Amino acid sequence: MKDLKIILMGFGAVGKGVAQAISIKKDNIVNKFGINIKLVAVADSNSSAISNKGLDEKLLIETKETSGTLSKYPEFGTDVNGLDVLNKVDYDLLVEATPTNIDNGEPAKSLTIHAFKSGKDVVTSNKGHLALYFSEMLDLARENNVEFKYEASVGGAMPIINFAEETLPSSSISSIIGILNGTTNYILSRMTTEGSSYRNTLEESQQLGIAETDPTQDVEGIDAACKTVILANSILKVPATYSDVKVEGISKITSESIELAKKEGYLIKLIAEVSKENLSVSPRLVKKNSPYAIEGTLNMATIKTDLADEVTVVGKGAGSLETASAMLTDIINIIKKKY
Amino acid sequence: MKDLKIILMGFGAVGKGVAQAISIKKDNIVNKFGINIKLVAVADSNSSAISNKGLDEKLLIETKETSGTLSKYPEFGTDVNGLDVLNKVDYDLLVEATPTNIDNGEPAKSLTIHAFKSGKDVVTSNKGHLALYFSEMLDLARENNVEFKYEASVGGAMPIINFAEETLPSSSISSIIGILNGTTNYILSRMTTEGSSYRNTLEESQQLGIAETDPTQDVEGIDAACKTVILANSILKVPATYSDVKVEGISKITSESIELAKKEGYLIKLIAEVSKENLSVSPRLVKKNSPYAIEGTLNMATIKTDLADEVTVVGKGAGSLETASAMLTDIINIIKKKY
Repeated sequence: MKDLKIILMGFGAVGKGVAQAISIKKDNIVNKFGINIKLVAVADSNSSAISNKGLDEKLLIETKETSGTLSKYPEFGTDVNGLDVLNKVDYDLLVEATPTNIDNGEPAKSLTIHAFKSGKDVVTSNKGHLALYFSEMLDLARENNVEFKYEASVGGAMPIINFAEETLPSSSISSIIGILNGTTNYILSRMTTEGSSYRNTLEESQQLGIAETDPTQDVEGIDAACKTVILANSILKVPATYSDVKVEGISKITSESIELAKKEGYLIKLIAEVSKENLSVSPRLVKKNSPYAIEGTLNMATIKTDLADEVTVVGKGAGSLETASAMLTDIINIIKKKY
Repeated sequence: MKDLKIILMGFGAVGKGVAQAISIKKDNIVNKFGINIKLVAVADSNSSAISNKGLDEKLLIETKETSGTLSKYPEFGTDVNGLDVLNKVDYDLLVEATPTNIDNGEPAKSLTIHAFKSGKDVVTSNKGHLALYFSEMLDLARENNVEFKYEASVGGAMPIINFAEETLPSSSISSIIGILNGTTNYILSRMTTEGSSYRNTLEESQQLGIAETDPTQDVEGIDAACKTVILANSILKVPATYSDVKVEGISKITSESIELAKKEGYLIKLIAEVSKENLSVSPRLVKKNSPYAIEGTLNMATIKTDLADEVTVVGKGAGSLETASAMLTDIINIIKKKY
């Protein structure tokens, strides 16, 4: 049996989900592929746990949740972090789950480049470096002959990138139109069912932990625009970057406009459009009882193809274990291909 | 460059779609995989066209549409049909698109068994032999070391079987709940929007060619039950057969019950449930604005998983080219694996 030695960078909601998913599925993966997944290092922003014998997934989560730092992990806790972890540890694959940074893509960018240059495969949930430097990152992966997978960066557990590639190989895809941000979909859904104002609904969402304290990335469409760039590059092979997307958020939507739309059988949704002609994120009218009429924090995407016509996928756009499941799918696809 | 010699049995809507899809995509497949797809024989119920040099897809469709029989195909038209075609022709892969027969699975069953025993791969859109003899067919394919693919048998262009296998490998699937019959969904949708009676809506659907002259297979849930069996076997590995499914159709649904549901925010849909505990097809209440609230002839399926939670796919459940696209996906997956 072969080991697959993984470094996990980032131990927030998604990182913890990855540890949990590995803990649930590792026996399964041993049985199915003869591969033993081993977390040899896990790091958050200022600490880590490192052991070439493999760390205990549940103890990692427990340590982080009780003490707030991985440096308290029994015997193997350290203050090493960032690139130093990659330099210090012998590994096969980097799982990169640090927070998205749309200004310069760091630390994801440096970590990923370092891994590529060391000949390591990378699985990421991060949108920042992809939205800013997609072609550069892909080229570098190719040059170094490593795998680079990013299913979790768009739509969380909603399968879209692997889906387009593997499940629809017979069709050519001309566009993807969808709801790629769960927070704004939650706010718009609540405004529609409750008739409440944008301001009040945002506050309610913040109290529920659905919207962040600074909601800008979600409500101004920035998060959805990053995902638009990733889909344009990965599925349509359009070499776009963040600044190519026309972006309008939902902060100007009033309960009156929602009410007006409702009377005519429509809903207002924050729609991302990805086509050769148009990269945009903006509020649009969609028909009730259409695949776009999803509620709550769900994500959806309708893929327009030449042979299969329109195919739609719907799934949880966020969530710790859900997003981790997409990363584990990427890991399994790398195992299938290379191990 | 290698040839992939295909016999296409069945030249109705789906069969013609396959010819059209091959005609559209053959250059693409040459470029991408270095494989030259060649239709060496195409047969309907009482005639065929046979040429080991390969037939012209457009001329096949034209011949069938103008003369009603493939025996009129220039130079290569014959009266040979059925198993005789398989015996007479040198081929690699059988594309089986004959009509579904839920009484004994013929002629699909005999054609498929003959192909298996000759060491040929098979791609089918047929539900009959699968709903009646799933395990037997799969075992026989395995014994003869051939590929057997049937994505098109469930949901037409809605990806579900390949989707569950390839796009969700990290999760365990516990159930699939969906709308697997487009005709009944069309009838129920129209009854909901128009307030019309079942009888009138069925007649209207028949005039539009959406429901068949004898609508029994659709409206009594038989078609959806066949698909339920196929999903139970293929995705959940439950060795079920047609008689294991509890089936209730839509012919007793009244416009009054639909109106009543509507007032409470619900729709009535013909829902198929596929789980270890329950195999059933029956009318059920679903929430408005849920993924189940699709209109028209669309199909959908919600896959319940352990890690990714619920993932939903929506697509065209029928249509000539759409169904053919699923068969071409199966062909491409066989090319990827074996050629």
